[in-house]
Amino acid sequence: MSLRPTIDFLLNDWLSVERLNQRERFADHSRETFDAVLDTCERIAREKYAPFNRLVDTQEPHFDGEKVILPQATHDAQKAYAESGMLSAAQDYDIGGMQLPYTVEAAANAFFAMASVSIGSGLLTVGNANLLMAHGTDLQKRVFALNEFSGRWSGTMCLSEPQAGSSLSDVATRAVPDGSDFESDPLGPRYRLKGNKMWISAGEHELTENIVHLVLAKIPDAEGKLVPGTRGISLFIVPKKLVDTDGKLTGERNDVALAGLNHKCGWRGTTNTLLNFGEGKYPVRGASGGGLDGAGAGAVGYLVGQPGRGLQCMFHMMNEARIGVGMAATMLGMAGYHASLEYAKNRPQGRPVTSGGKDAAAPQVRIIEHADVKRMLLAQKSYAEGALALELYCARLVDEQHTGAPEAADDARLLLEVLTPIAKSWPSEWCLEANSLAIQIHGGYGYTRDFPVEQYWRDNRLNMIHEGTHGIQAMDLLGRKVLMENGKGLALLAGRINDTIQRAIQVPEFAGHANALGKALQDVGATTKAAWATANPTEALANAVPYLQAFGHTVLAWVWLDVALAAHAAQDSPSRTGRLAAARFFFHYELPKIGAWLQVVRTRDLTCADLAEDAF
Amino acid sequence: MSLRPTIDFLLNDWLSVERLNQRERFADHSRETFDAVLDTCERIAREKYAPFNRLVDTQEPHFDGEKVILPQATHDAQKAYAESGMLSAAQDYDIGGMQLPYTVEAAANAFFAMASVSIGSGLLTVGNANLLMAHGTDLQKRVFALNEFSGRWSGTMCLSEPQAGSSLSDVATRAVPDGSDFESDPLGPRYRLKGNKMWISAGEHELTENIVHLVLAKIPDAEGKLVPGTRGISLFIVPKKLVDTDGKLTGERNDVALAGLNHKCGWRGTTNTLLNFGEGKYPVRGASGGGLDGAGAGAVGYLVGQPGRGLQCMFHMMNEARIGVGMAATMLGMAGYHASLEYAKNRPQGRPVTSGGKDAAAPQVRIIEHADVKRMLLAQKSYAEGALALELYCARLVDEQHTGAPEAADDARLLLEVLTPIAKSWPSEWCLEANSLAIQIHGGYGYTRDFPVEQYWRDNRLNMIHEGTHGIQAMDLLGRKVLMENGKGLALLAGRINDTIQRAIQVPEFAGHANALGKALQDVGATTKAAWATANPTEALANAVPYLQAFGHTVLAWVWLDVALAAHAAQDSPSRTGRLAAARFFFHYELPKIGAWLQVVRTRDLTCADLAEDAF
Repeated sequence: MSLRPTIDFLLNDWLSVERLNQRERFADHSRETFDAVLDTCERIAREKYAPFNRLVDTQEPHFDGEKVILPQATHDAQKAYAESGMLSAAQDYDIGGMQLPYTVEAAANAFFAMASVSIGSGLLTVGNANLLMAHGTDLQKRVFALNEFSGRWSGTMCLSEPQAGSSLSDVATRAVPDGSDFESDPLGPRYRLKGNKMWISAGEHELTENIVHLVLAKIPDAEGKLVPGTRGISLFIVPKKLVDTDGKLTGERNDVALAGLNHKCGWRGTTNTLLNFGEGKYPVRGASGGGLDGAGAGAVGYLVGQPGRGLQCMFHMMNEARIGVGMAATMLGMAGYHASLEYAKNRPQGRPVTSGGKDAAAPQVRIIEHADVKRMLLAQKSYAEGALALELYCARLVDEQHTGAPEAADDARLLLEVLTPIAKSWPSEWCLEANSLAIQIHGGYGYTRDFPVEQYWRDNRLNMIHEGTHGIQAMDLLGRKVLMENGKGLALLAGRINDTIQRAIQVPEFAGHANALGKALQDVGATTKAAWATANPTEALANAVPYLQAFGHTVLAWVWLDVALAAHAAQDSPSRTGRLAAARFFFHYELPKIGAWLQVVRTRDLTCADLAEDAF
Repeated sequence: MSLRPTIDFLLNDWLSVERLNQRERFADHSRETFDAVLDTCERIAREKYAPFNRLVDTQEPHFDGEKVILPQATHDAQKAYAESGMLSAAQDYDIGGMQLPYTVEAAANAFFAMASVSIGSGLLTVGNANLLMAHGTDLQKRVFALNEFSGRWSGTMCLSEPQAGSSLSDVATRAVPDGSDFESDPLGPRYRLKGNKMWISAGEHELTENIVHLVLAKIPDAEGKLVPGTRGISLFIVPKKLVDTDGKLTGERNDVALAGLNHKCGWRGTTNTLLNFGEGKYPVRGASGGGLDGAGAGAVGYLVGQPGRGLQCMFHMMNEARIGVGMAATMLGMAGYHASLEYAKNRPQGRPVTSGGKDAAAPQVRIIEHADVKRMLLAQKSYAEGALALELYCARLVDEQHTGAPEAADDARLLLEVLTPIAKSWPSEWCLEANSLAIQIHGGYGYTRDFPVEQYWRDNRLNMIHEGTHGIQAMDLLGRKVLMENGKGLALLAGRINDTIQRAIQVPEFAGHANALGKALQDVGATTKAAWATANPTEALANAVPYLQAFGHTVLAWVWLDVALAAHAAQDSPSRTGRLAAARFFFHYELPKIGAWLQVVRTRDLTCADLAEDAF
């Protein structure tokens, strides 16, 4: 079983990505060039990633006192990825890119996430380099971003600190100007950083020649105090090894030291680190060359953009990262679905219950013949394929934002703002549930490390946490995104949903779905108003997560109805039947769940929020 | 924070277990003797179990070629457990027991499950010995059961085989009479067994002097054929080491060989094995003493009960085991709740959202002050404490069945039949969800092995699988239990629920809950009828799991309302406030979920069941 037909259907039959070729940026592309990229990625994922997914789980990264050791398979896989050119797929031809639409890039990367999310491809490195392309100086782009796109160096994002996880306003890493001529460094205003960064993925390893850390830190004011809140946050490039303006290593190590590896429940192929910046382990000479400023003078960092605007720059990277997390969760769900489908087709066990009872003398049937196994398979299909459609739709919006006509581009931007919390949170919750169902189909075997599904489940559990927890996404959605620009984003989304409803209502088979979706959309709208009826954020946001869940299920019902319309227009085939059934499943089994979630939001239920601490 | 106040409240204020002392069997007991048992178990769990829960996860059992090696901590913990007398707590005084009500025994065992489910206490050993007390001969009781109750030997249940997991009718282990005088062995009719048994917990270890396997096998007919179906299954005692009629080891090993250890995702402190019976690794001399019957003649086993009645005997043990699994799931949920509550009270992060926005200069608050963290805590409380109440209620029914007046005892038996699928499945699903919420509250830390919650979540995932999967429980409930004796069990349960509703409706605070529960009960009743309206099992059972979920949530709403009535009658206190809030949470956030589940059952939705295999 292959993922490819699903990808092909969504890209071509549903999203019509070929039409993008009418735009100047993509004029050289065609269905053939897109297919060639997908072919290459599918092959590398199959050969270099999938066979080693369990190995990277059992051979966790370890620190030998000097270096972080990763399996050879990880080196080989990431080398093959870089050599494929995927790191710069979306970039301009003139810097070596392919000018590939983001939609196709995202689809191609899905193969790697499915084969081994834990080995990883280039999500952080590409995001890091993209941020520099948007906010860096020409030299910062040339020295840092281009070396990341080529795969020579890799990138990280260093936001969290041990005391500042979800709460970035509490970042305490300090950056002070490095000498009186700090502003004249060609690589950017030069600072010295001191502080600790936590949860840094790929923060230390030997996979690449250098590591480009993008670090949030605060520049103290004249009295040496840090500005409270996020306003005081600036962004710095802090390379692991110092480089010159040609991008050559100077031979000097920057003062970035590994303080510890986190031992995770899953996603073990990727190092996750606690990094100390400027603690003096690798002291760096003063900028003016005149000897040490004293041990612990700090890690060298180059300011990106304006001081105090660091978080705005970083959000550029975080939005991409959130869609990336959603895609990772999605493809883990897909991997579990495919594995359990394969198992269900081959495992004989039990006999069907019929009106005549069970005939014990009859041979066993394969478990895919049991209704409950089919239910668990169809649930997984509706979660994983629905989530994939959502992620590709969001990717298509990114292309629209970048290459569409002005009004369409602005609409795409705003739709993306509203959909990003769903694209990140929904797969992380429901494709985790899909993985649990994949285990359940395997029975006791699924609970052992002899089958892949328990690892998918463990790997997937991270996705509700990193890049903004469920709670953060929910506050972002109900507290900001549905309100911004006077609710224009929500209205835009409602317009798109209504378009789909109008088309669906004309197909007798979909009339029931269309009506159910219309009702759900009304309920979400009314609930949004009811939540804010008292204009009191404490009351409005008390049940932000149930709101996020209901909003997400409504969005997915819309996506499924729209996908079903495309399937309906296609020739009869088993995969068409399957897509229509998955849509029907979503409308019959899933969408009705929103009632329970919306009820507590609508009534601004304070059962939880009001409960005194000593009553728990 | 201690579990004890919750246990005390449920046992005394809610279930009034003291009243059991009016019964002859428990006449010597009092609140003081019950408390002493709870004190002892709480202490042993705290000292010998809890500190080693992570250790047994990381030091998995391994086979050194001869023996299975477990950590010393496991030996120490199980020794302390056996010395406490808990293995025979429920037994008669004259065989060394305490004649303790099962309700108190179950409550006392909860401490061990919470401290380290993975180290284990005596669930299988006690279940095994209880089965022999019910179905064994006097000598089988004396030799095998009594040595299990003393902790000298331990016990297993050997049902599954590699090709026969949920489908026990496909058991292929063969048992043939051992010589012409096979019926004259004082330990029971003597057979030779050959076959493979899979998923055998505690199937091989050095924790006890001997292991008593209870094994399902089929006795071939005159033509050497096995009877198809479960009718052909018989039950055998197969000791790891052979013993004489005084219970002394003969020095000879029985032909039971470890074929492999399963490497599980969690619950790693307990060995889980594949065992080969009678493959010839430890050949056993012939019964008549005259040399070997030839290598591979089989493992020696003694018939328990009548041939062909093995499954009925085993069900005696399986029902206890199912309540035990429910309790294990419950206490893992409780452990995660307590751990995340502790963390939430101590972890500073972020600031509350108020009408004035966030004040970044204000100090961080502890995360328990955030509404969404409170929601995740209250959800856990409602799942874990609700499940504990249900398990103890079921335990109280066991006492009623064994010591109540005839009519009450029969009602208890029937109620237990209906509630057992819920007692097993509901905590295994919702206390797993509780564990996921406990991780979520910990953020990234919860995903690391530096905190206990990820282990609880991994350990708990097994509970939806072993002792009958969710699918099996659902078929049992909708296909058998709600129908049996003309629906008398369901009617009895409805009667109990209505009693609670009648009491609750008189308390203004509970009137809304009472009405909601009444409506849910009607919906479940109507849906049960609708499912069977066509009398076609394929249609009725197509959505048995959603039915199980809705039924479970309705039962839990009833349990919470009943518990809330007891709390309402108590003096004002923080814990009273907490219980009332947890009940309110369940009615506001959880019970409304049943609508979506029941809808597909009521309409006999065949979206899944009818889907062709090639459409997935």
